Amino acid sequence: MHDDTCELCTQPGGEIVYRNDKLRIVLVDDANYPGFCRVIWNAHVKEMTDLSSDDRAMFMQAVWQVESAIREVMQPDKINVASLGNMVPHQHWHVIPRYGDDVHFPGPIWGDAKRVNNVDQLAARAALLPALRAAIVRECMQ
Amino acid sequence: MHDDTCELCTQPGGEIVYRNDKLRIVLVDDANYPGFCRVIWNAHVKEMTDLSSDDRAMFMQAVWQVESAIREVMQPDKINVASLGNMVPHQHWHVIPRYGDDVHFPGPIWGDAKRVNNVDQLAARAALLPALRAAIVRECMQ
Repeated sequence: MHDDTCELCTQPGGEIVYRNDKLRIVLVDDANYPGFCRVIWNAHVKEMTDLSSDDRAMFMQAVWQVESAIREVMQPDKINVASLGNMVPHQHWHVIPRYGDDVHFPGPIWGDAKRVNNVDQLAARAALLPALRAAIVRECMQ
Repeated sequence: MHDDTCELCTQPGGEIVYRNDKLRIVLVDDANYPGFCRVIWNAHVKEMTDLSSDDRAMFMQAVWQVESAIREVMQPDKINVASLGNMVPHQHWHVIPRYGDDVHFPGPIWGDAKRVNNVDQLAARAALLPALRAAIVRECMQ
């Protein structure tokens, strides 16, 4: 359940906003996507179906808490949620606020850029991060 | 809960393998990714957190049943799971078997192609589809 060669076993994976004994929630440092969060399982587990159903439910509950906090604070046009892990096979969920004017919309953030970011919009969104941190903690404490 | 302009309200969205009153599971017609499934909520709902927690749990349970069936039958190197919906904001989950030799690995399937597909491998994987259909139905009937 720990792999010394795995970056999510050996590093936090972002700025930790919330952590319990099973999982942690981090803010991802992505200039194009302020508010991009990851929910990372603490133990080294490859697939969701490797977890017990209780653990899976707890993991997804945290994903929905992050989604709720992002929607409340950042009012995105859409939420994207994904568990990929091809490069880092340690379960983590991407929870990404998407906007009609973001670099890749309506494509996934992993595809080709469709436009240059609007710097003022990005700054306005980044200014919401303190409120987002607080909302995530509040959701997780409920 | 129905939108006449939404392709997932007006069309099945793929070959239906299983359907109940809440959701359906379809096989996606993607030549590069035999075994690629979608779990589609029948009603027109934009975000997971727009669903009740019971509905969300039922939806995710179907995603894990599909993941289990894919792992059992297709033995992929990794499973990718994602709910994006930027173009079709009607909740649907992509459940994708990934292999080290597939077109985009280790990138997401929405990024740049990294190689040409191995035709023989693809044919071998496509030959597993009858077994995959059966395994999905079996998982959902449990």
